[in-house]
Amino acid sequence: MSDHQPTIFDKILSGEIPSYKVYEDDHVFAFLDIGPLSEGHTLVIPKERKAQLHQLSDESAAALGRVLPRLCRAVMNATGATAYNVLQNNGSAAHQVVMHVHFHIIPKFGGQGLGIGWPAGKLSESTARDLLDKMRRALEA
Amino acid sequence: MSDHQPTIFDKILSGEIPSYKVYEDDHVFAFLDIGPLSEGHTLVIPKERKAQLHQLSDESAAALGRVLPRLCRAVMNATGATAYNVLQNNGSAAHQVVMHVHFHIIPKFGGQGLGIGWPAGKLSESTARDLLDKMRRALEA
Repeated sequence: MSDHQPTIFDKILSGEIPSYKVYEDDHVFAFLDIGPLSEGHTLVIPKERKAQLHQLSDESAAALGRVLPRLCRAVMNATGATAYNVLQNNGSAAHQVVMHVHFHIIPKFGGQGLGIGWPAGKLSESTARDLLDKMRRALEA
Repeated sequence: MSDHQPTIFDKILSGEIPSYKVYEDDHVFAFLDIGPLSEGHTLVIPKERKAQLHQLSDESAAALGRVLPRLCRAVMNATGATAYNVLQNNGSAAHQVVMHVHFHIIPKFGGQGLGIGWPAGKLSESTARDLLDKMRRALEA
């Protein structure tokens, strides 16, 4: 992990910087975002120190996945939210600011919450076939 | 699961409607989005038929979490993307269209990909304490 620069999340995990901790287990730590998009905005991070999701170990990723529904239920319960987005950004170009994997749980209340732009295109047969070939090869490697 | 209406994803899972399948295991199915926000836009869904993330079983959620990094690597490998967003919407108000849990993996290429609006607020100490009380109680219930 020598290629991974320290981030503020290391200090939150170590307790050096205080946080509003919601949940912790062997692999996962969750706390309130102090710059929330809406009330109840929660961050869920692996203790494994990786910048981006594709770098995460199976074990750490499974542990994160397992607790996401539980944490979503807690956010809904605490805020009364009935709609919410789960967002995980990778790379500055994709709006990632802290370079340690984190999932946002963001309740949606009317206009409050995550803003989403959805400029959908259309998938052609030839593009699809080309992508599938490459992705399946990558998965088998 | 009687409260869950059938969706197009049931027919994709059963093979009744064809899809560009990227990956499948006992719990998870992944395929190309036919209305992609960018090249390589992939959907990852549980075979468990639940509308929203907070309804998902631990087992199914862990299985989904485990394969997300692998699928992100495959998308990056196939498209050359270096930045990407992982998004999972819950409820019509939060931009969910198909009422079966799905994670989007959306590569970001310059202006192509997911549009994000980030109207951040500020978390007060009193709001944080109130939320933490409620969320921790919900997690212990």
